[in-house]
Amino acid sequence: MTARRPAEPGMPLAQVETPALIVDLDAMQANIKALATRVSAFPSVRATPHAKAHKCLEIARLQMAAGASRICCQNVAEVETLATGGITNILLSNEIIGADKARRLAEAARTAKVAVCVDHADQVAVLAKAADEAGVTLDILVEIDVGMGRCGVPSTESAVALAREVAKHKGLRFTGLQAYHGTAQHLRKPEERAAAIAKAAAFARQTADALREAGLPCEVIAGAGTGTYENEMTGGVYTELQCGSYVFMDADYGRNDTAYPFRNALFVLTSVISSAAPGRAVCDAGLKSLTAESGLPVTYEAPGVTYVKATDEHGTLELSADAQVRPGDRLKLIPGHCDPTVNLHDWLVAYRGDTVEAVWRVARGW
Amino acid sequence: MTARRPAEPGMPLAQVETPALIVDLDAMQANIKALATRVSAFPSVRATPHAKAHKCLEIARLQMAAGASRICCQNVAEVETLATGGITNILLSNEIIGADKARRLAEAARTAKVAVCVDHADQVAVLAKAADEAGVTLDILVEIDVGMGRCGVPSTESAVALAREVAKHKGLRFTGLQAYHGTAQHLRKPEERAAAIAKAAAFARQTADALREAGLPCEVIAGAGTGTYENEMTGGVYTELQCGSYVFMDADYGRNDTAYPFRNALFVLTSVISSAAPGRAVCDAGLKSLTAESGLPVTYEAPGVTYVKATDEHGTLELSADAQVRPGDRLKLIPGHCDPTVNLHDWLVAYRGDTVEAVWRVARGW
Repeated sequence: MTARRPAEPGMPLAQVETPALIVDLDAMQANIKALATRVSAFPSVRATPHAKAHKCLEIARLQMAAGASRICCQNVAEVETLATGGITNILLSNEIIGADKARRLAEAARTAKVAVCVDHADQVAVLAKAADEAGVTLDILVEIDVGMGRCGVPSTESAVALAREVAKHKGLRFTGLQAYHGTAQHLRKPEERAAAIAKAAAFARQTADALREAGLPCEVIAGAGTGTYENEMTGGVYTELQCGSYVFMDADYGRNDTAYPFRNALFVLTSVISSAAPGRAVCDAGLKSLTAESGLPVTYEAPGVTYVKATDEHGTLELSADAQVRPGDRLKLIPGHCDPTVNLHDWLVAYRGDTVEAVWRVARGW
Repeated sequence: MTARRPAEPGMPLAQVETPALIVDLDAMQANIKALATRVSAFPSVRATPHAKAHKCLEIARLQMAAGASRICCQNVAEVETLATGGITNILLSNEIIGADKARRLAEAARTAKVAVCVDHADQVAVLAKAADEAGVTLDILVEIDVGMGRCGVPSTESAVALAREVAKHKGLRFTGLQAYHGTAQHLRKPEERAAAIAKAAAFARQTADALREAGLPCEVIAGAGTGTYENEMTGGVYTELQCGSYVFMDADYGRNDTAYPFRNALFVLTSVISSAAPGRAVCDAGLKSLTAESGLPVTYEAPGVTYVKATDEHGTLELSADAQVRPGDRLKLIPGHCDPTVNLHDWLVAYRGDTVEAVWRVARGW
């Protein structure tokens, strides 16, 4: 049993069951167009939007239609969803391990061009075996740690050694570097982000130079997110931009000290369920329908109503003296962080104006 | 498309696809028995375990078999799952609003005895209409705010007024008070918890007295959680204990300054996917498979390996000098907070020893 659909196409937004994840199609389509237009001014760079933010086949299709060269995923379930749905070029911008996941990835490579990242010889061995058994080729990016302190080899020398390891296997094709700097995305000041990406780009360029000298040229240097993409796009090193959140935006990106050309398109629609005490109300969107690790959600177009506390099933709202709410009233909340909030939902309700236009599946699972 | 099952019965735990939510059946069954045994020593008190922690029909059945008088739920989808699955007595310990949710609740009341909370006359009107249309009776608890500052009427007078409102409707039956003190559960010191519950119990007793004088006696005074149940159980006021987390426990309850008679039964099983830098590794369980709002997960039986950072799809592990891990190694993580972590998963893998015994559905959705 999957969670019930909270809406049907044609339904007024006022009838959607709450809490629900809703997306304003006009705003989202404007965001997709804004990125595509900006990237098209830089011929050496391509948009490769990240599906980890939306986990939604229909949105990936809109991004490809707007000129994306491929779609990024962060796990095998996302790759399977997109490949099955007709997306023909996919990068799993993450490491995977285990024969079963590698087999599934190789299976997806029968219908789509599939690339994946590595940072350890053990992953290379597992992927090579799976590619060989499926009779497919997997494109491989070596991930370098450009400052995030998470995945990625730490040095140019180790990147070259790992690329050589990749090149030994006939089912694998070394194609370049994954050089994503996640923690730079939410540095608040533009100059902090610029400095972090300049450092990342210098490491990527140095490593690409060493790889070329070793006879392993990089077709691809990939990275960037919604917070920093202007830096990677204009710096002359990166060739692919993996922006994800731009399609929706969220409250955390709203706190960056930069006017991004993207609008809030994603909301959690919630109902007030309780207003028993003066100055306070409670809505039905808590930690099971939004996440708070990047800050609380922000109420949208609801003057005097502030979301002040998230518990499992409840959101506590503080009301100014002139704000009147009662059970049944509805609010839109801008999530603190779009990616893990989307992951809490099985359905994404796409609306235009006040009417539901489509109800899309979220590709949950791993 | 629902997320794939990560395991099948009979499979060794070592083959379960990660990240997966796993439950140690021996530990969980010991926890269920420990609470049932303790409560059975107090004839005026009944265990009414909360399904919001596990969202799982099979676990609710085990709790009923151990002597629970009913099962609590926190939303209508949980009620539907349990009622359809044969649980015959259910309390929705929360407020609901909206004709559709009320209709679904009344529908569930055709097969199970169903009770629900109110704290506003608007909810009463909606429930009365739904009960009337379905030709069922809904038992009603008036929720009082005993110190949490969330739902619940703020005074004895308002509780009596609302109970009188309930009594006007023939499809509704006033049965008592919901007096849950959520924030008391995680007060670290036993004396802090005792003081908070003593205050809650005094307010509940005073309100019950006033209701009896008004001709509206309380059959039920309900509340309590895993952190405080000894206080409600022994205080002479409460009649129902709504413990939820006891069945699993979590890292946050582990930080209370009390030796509860419950063991850790719930884990997120994760694989190391990257170990490219000395002293650090990365696993595949991040914010999409566990939550961190009540603290990071704690590694289980993995000396020298500390979970230090959760990002969307990754957990960063810090390694002591003598801890060796490589891609493919597996770890059990004790979640920071069991309830919202369970809600991230579609399946709960129940194991005994090293073998999967069952794969259970998590009742997600609202």
